[in-house]
Amino acid sequence: MKKIKVGIVGGSGYTGIELLRLLSQHPYAEIVTITSRSDAGTHVADMYPSLRKRVDLVFQDPKDAPLKECDVVFFATPHGVAMSMARELVANGVKVIDLAADFRLKDLEAFKKWYKMDHACPEMMEKAVYGQPETMREQMKDAMIFGMAGCYPTSIELGLLPLLELHKRIGDIVDIKQTIIADSKSGISGAGKKASVSNLCAEASDNFKAYGVGGHRHSPEIVQQLTEFAGEPVSLSFIPHLLPTIRGIFSTIYVQLTRKGQEVNFQKVYEERYANEPFVDVMPQGALPETRMVRGSNYVRIALYRKEPNFLIILVVEDNLVKGASGQAVQAMNIAFGLPETSGLEQIALVP
Amino acid sequence: MKKIKVGIVGGSGYTGIELLRLLSQHPYAEIVTITSRSDAGTHVADMYPSLRKRVDLVFQDPKDAPLKECDVVFFATPHGVAMSMARELVANGVKVIDLAADFRLKDLEAFKKWYKMDHACPEMMEKAVYGQPETMREQMKDAMIFGMAGCYPTSIELGLLPLLELHKRIGDIVDIKQTIIADSKSGISGAGKKASVSNLCAEASDNFKAYGVGGHRHSPEIVQQLTEFAGEPVSLSFIPHLLPTIRGIFSTIYVQLTRKGQEVNFQKVYEERYANEPFVDVMPQGALPETRMVRGSNYVRIALYRKEPNFLIILVVEDNLVKGASGQAVQAMNIAFGLPETSGLEQIALVP
Amino acid sequence: MKKIKVGIVGGSGYTGIELLRLLSQHPYAEIVTITSRSDAGTHVADMYPSLRKRVDLVFQDPKDAPLKECDVVFFATPHGVAMSMARELVANGVKVIDLAADFRLKDLEAFKKWYKMDHACPEMMEKAVYGQPETMREQMKDAMIFGMAGCYPTSIELGLLPLLELHKRIGDIVDIKQTIIADSKSGISGAGKKASVSNLCAEASDNFKAYGVGGHRHSPEIVQQLTEFAGEPVSLSFIPHLLPTIRGIFSTIYVQLTRKGQEVNFQKVYEERYANEPFVDVMPQGALPETRMVRGSNYVRIALYRKEPNFLIILVVEDNLVKGASGQAVQAMNIAFGLPETSGLEQIALVP
Amino acid sequence: MKKIKVGIVGGSGYTGIELLRLLSQHPYAEIVTITSRSDAGTHVADMYPSLRKRVDLVFQDPKDAPLKECDVVFFATPHGVAMSMARELVANGVKVIDLAADFRLKDLEAFKKWYKMDHACPEMMEKAVYGQPETMREQMKDAMIFGMAGCYPTSIELGLLPLLELHKRIGDIVDIKQTIIADSKSGISGAGKKASVSNLCAEASDNFKAYGVGGHRHSPEIVQQLTEFAGEPVSLSFIPHLLPTIRGIFSTIYVQLTRKGQEVNFQKVYEERYANEPFVDVMPQGALPETRMVRGSNYVRIALYRKEPNFLIILVVEDNLVKGASGQAVQAMNIAFGLPETSGLEQIALVP
Repeated sequence: MKKIKVGIVGGSGYTGIELLRLLSQHPYAEIVTITSRSDAGTHVADMYPSLRKRVDLVFQDPKDAPLKECDVVFFATPHGVAMSMARELVANGVKVIDLAADFRLKDLEAFKKWYKMDHACPEMMEKAVYGQPETMREQMKDAMIFGMAGCYPTSIELGLLPLLELHKRIGDIVDIKQTIIADSKSGISGAGKKASVSNLCAEASDNFKAYGVGGHRHSPEIVQQLTEFAGEPVSLSFIPHLLPTIRGIFSTIYVQLTRKGQEVNFQKVYEERYANEPFVDVMPQGALPETRMVRGSNYVRIALYRKEPNFLIILVVEDNLVKGASGQAVQAMNIAFGLPETSGLEQIALVP
Repeated sequence: MKKIKVGIVGGSGYTGIELLRLLSQHPYAEIVTITSRSDAGTHVADMYPSLRKRVDLVFQDPKDAPLKECDVVFFATPHGVAMSMARELVANGVKVIDLAADFRLKDLEAFKKWYKMDHACPEMMEKAVYGQPETMREQMKDAMIFGMAGCYPTSIELGLLPLLELHKRIGDIVDIKQTIIADSKSGISGAGKKASVSNLCAEASDNFKAYGVGGHRHSPEIVQQLTEFAGEPVSLSFIPHLLPTIRGIFSTIYVQLTRKGQEVNFQKVYEERYANEPFVDVMPQGALPETRMVRGSNYVRIALYRKEPNFLIILVVEDNLVKGASGQAVQAMNIAFGLPETSGLEQIALVP
Repeated sequence: MKKIKVGIVGGSGYTGIELLRLLSQHPYAEIVTITSRSDAGTHVADMYPSLRKRVDLVFQDPKDAPLKECDVVFFATPHGVAMSMARELVANGVKVIDLAADFRLKDLEAFKKWYKMDHACPEMMEKAVYGQPETMREQMKDAMIFGMAGCYPTSIELGLLPLLELHKRIGDIVDIKQTIIADSKSGISGAGKKASVSNLCAEASDNFKAYGVGGHRHSPEIVQQLTEFAGEPVSLSFIPHLLPTIRGIFSTIYVQLTRKGQEVNFQKVYEERYANEPFVDVMPQGALPETRMVRGSNYVRIALYRKEPNFLIILVVEDNLVKGASGQAVQAMNIAFGLPETSGLEQIALVP
Repeated sequence: MKKIKVGIVGGSGYTGIELLRLLSQHPYAEIVTITSRSDAGTHVADMYPSLRKRVDLVFQDPKDAPLKECDVVFFATPHGVAMSMARELVANGVKVIDLAADFRLKDLEAFKKWYKMDHACPEMMEKAVYGQPETMREQMKDAMIFGMAGCYPTSIELGLLPLLELHKRIGDIVDIKQTIIADSKSGISGAGKKASVSNLCAEASDNFKAYGVGGHRHSPEIVQQLTEFAGEPVSLSFIPHLLPTIRGIFSTIYVQLTRKGQEVNFQKVYEERYANEPFVDVMPQGALPETRMVRGSNYVRIALYRKEPNFLIILVVEDNLVKGASGQAVQAMNIAFGLPETSGLEQIALVP
């Protein structure tokens, strides 16, 4: 089988090296170029010695890189880069997979408010698919532009999808007037690889804190999707916290049920909805997920709890750099090119 | 000043060594005996070399220890031990401070249900004070028996006290029909010092999980207090999680406000309620607590947030072994003996 | 290609789950049985949810397991188990790969001294191959019994192999009268998955200590090999330390050189010796290894330093559970069955 | 007793906050000013909320701070600052205690080589005392300038002091032609509080590495002292490593003994040498130090091992920010002002 030619823009951050880890083991993909303006000329394996003996590439300056000759280009860049290059790439038949926020928010005013920039190619938004394979598989098959869901959003959206779809279908399951609470905790790699005092090991290890309590950029993206799932406006209180772990997201989600909703067997609803999903695991009743159960793998694991009759508690774990970012992007690529969906994503979580 | 004579029963666990750390630096207390059935004859500093050059005691068998000659005896023991010895000690004029659950639940049926044992001295319950100095200071002055609040309960009870007291006083502040959510996270020392696979470093570090989702022993204790504060039944959904830190509790509490409640300036309410409390710190608007800000110290730090109009979010941190256990017990002792309340508790948090 | 039929005895410990992680992704192997006396009847994925959706096996009692029908049986058991079953398995044409110490020490008196048991099948020792693929590849091709090198020994033996081989070949390179120092540090998974107070997360995290200073079981195994490499007796001072990490071994090795040895270009010697080794990486001059550079992978990375003229400092990292145990065992299996040596071992280290 | 008036220059780093933690609990000291050029005007407790309710100071610009009115000024600054201000302060009768390197190296050429700057006040070097209270107590009583020993040097110098003093006194104990090896490991707070990628929590936690193998600034300082202790040139190979802990230094020191040295009872020599030292603990034979045994305290703990007859292994732990920096500086202040030497330094290590 001819291999897909892959380019990576912005390979020096954590989602970049994670793409390298996954794609260099991918049976049907070949990385032909990786760019980094600041590190052009550096051997990738000199920056990331974990790739020695496995990845033999040199960072190229973006202007020299043969991106237009690729079949697909991943953007592991800050917000704003992908949209500045998408038009030209797509015009050359190159698919664009953005791990940042450029193609996430349909409401361009909201985009401007949260990301402090105008959108560079609003006319491309219609061609862009936002979401996860589990929510947008069909649309991904023919799409040219992918706005991959963020790490927190994936955990919350997949955690609520079956519930809100059911609410939309049969109505009046969730007490929609009550705010859904998502108390989320993330490992520190979610903060990225840039020098900062607050993310120093001496500051962040053996510690736990909330942050972004006043408002987090991921909120509008999540509300947009939940509202779509539910078919009516959904209110969400999303509080992110910082874990002293390297990887992993754990979302504890609290939903108030209506009287009708209290009669539903949610365990069955979730198991059926995700029965054919290769990377979503609905754990059996009574089991409890842990972040290490997905460490380094593309799985999401979900457990459901009912303590008080009117409450559904949903526990979700994922690896923020895999299913929450680079793994999910590779999964989208597999779908977009008609490859087996699990190709290159079969790593089992590293336990212990 | 003549020093208070102190005994410690069950000194080999984490609350035991924490009592040793605090009391050995206490200006008005003298540890006269410490017991451990299994380690009788062992030098305390051989088991805990951090105490070398500072504590010169040998573990005594409880039956040989001069407990009745003490002014006060702390029980850092499993549930059930304090109540088996309290009657005799109190009869000899010795105050009893229990760090376990024997004197926490007024409902002895609930005690039996959760702790799987009959209460050994139900007639003493009336003489017992349960709670924190902040809630029961007056009663502590003359009490003979102290059922110290648990670690999770202290964080949640002090986090909600000003709000629920106000609700009781002026009515209709909290939407009492809606369940209060306490999403709590604890460092692993809360699990105690006993051999167990799930608390091994290879299992619990670089990991995060929920546990006891189906029901935790601390729930009835918390609900008992919240109901007392509010003057009417309060519903609570309490979900404990395990942090990969040694110490620290972080409780994120979500409360639904009534329309009247939405008009209240809670920042002011909390600051006033705790203005004279030496160990409760209401942080300024916009500040965010972190567990390390109380590491090794007796402080509780609280911050309040309003994101959605109908929601109050309360963030609370404490050190589970100090304010959540041994420190609070020493604070109670100080009150009970008329000592300056901060004696022996002036340690500043260890940062970084 | 017909798959190799694999059995695993004692699958509930850390080397057991690591074998499962590696072998379940192996293209030419099929796990036909896994045993655990205490957990017989339990689904493997119930004990290790990280294997959900990937491993569909139930622990069998060893006496019911079809071990004799396997092509190869791995022993991830305490010392003493493999030797009690090896004779019968080998008689049935089944290869035996032991991750414990039963087939490591040629000196059976030393075995008895350190492991407190008589050897159960001394006559099999001659058929047993001890060591790493890098030292014993040819012998492994036809062997029936494999005594895999321990985690510390692999790091020290591979770290010294090129040096001591050269010493043997051209003589008088190492000042053999001076003790070689191996200051080694291991992550806590090396202590195994059994309940113990000293390995609790509250004890071992945010901490560092030496242990086994008076003598460690791995010493005789290492000295046996070093002496063989050097062709004359070698003296070693091996001090193990415990790191607050889950995985990883870091050995800092100090060797005193003779005047002749000071003239050698060791960088070149090491690069040439390991040029064709798929899993040994001699890092370029000036680079420094870190344990995370091999986390979850089968690589060993080595760097060489000369500060003082008469001293060679060798820094070695490996993942104690992969190259130090289960990965190396799979590598041996690949050799023994004529499979591509890297089959099932191509995982890239998890960074960050 | 009238309190000592203390100034702190450069209070925003880790040794700065550690001085605040210690001095704010000191019975005979009063912090009258703390400076920070970049944070002038900021409340200290806003930057370090762990000090809320305890420290009520505002960072001052150095040029506005009443440093000349202090009795003593601590410099918790980068190298080069103290020497630029020392002359004027000393002329005003203010004692200067520098935690950086300005007054450590007697060889000003070496200073220039390692710190890339000329010395600003070479004529003051004679008045400066370098070292620890344990080595320079008498000289400290009248000194005006203190060059406090660094964190690594303190662990190695105190670890070797009794041995080398004996060597000097009775001769020929240590095989002085053989290099002494100090394999040292430090927690990450030793790297200071400045933004850097390599010290991010996602990089440095769950990891272990060596660094500065080619040469570390602390080497000349250590060799200077060891040579003084021994009375003849001492050769040292010092390899620093980075621990994934916040605090703590662990030095494993290997010394080759002469035949005469092998007859010495070093346990006795060390116990006698340090018998009256309040902060040095020679652990009993067979005991092993751990970094947590000194976490947050001013103690050094030392253990001695003999495995091979010709080798003495010395294990030393200290908290790099206390005994390795700020605590030792306060101890020096106590000596210099005739205060009880343990004043303000009685914190017991935080265990667990």
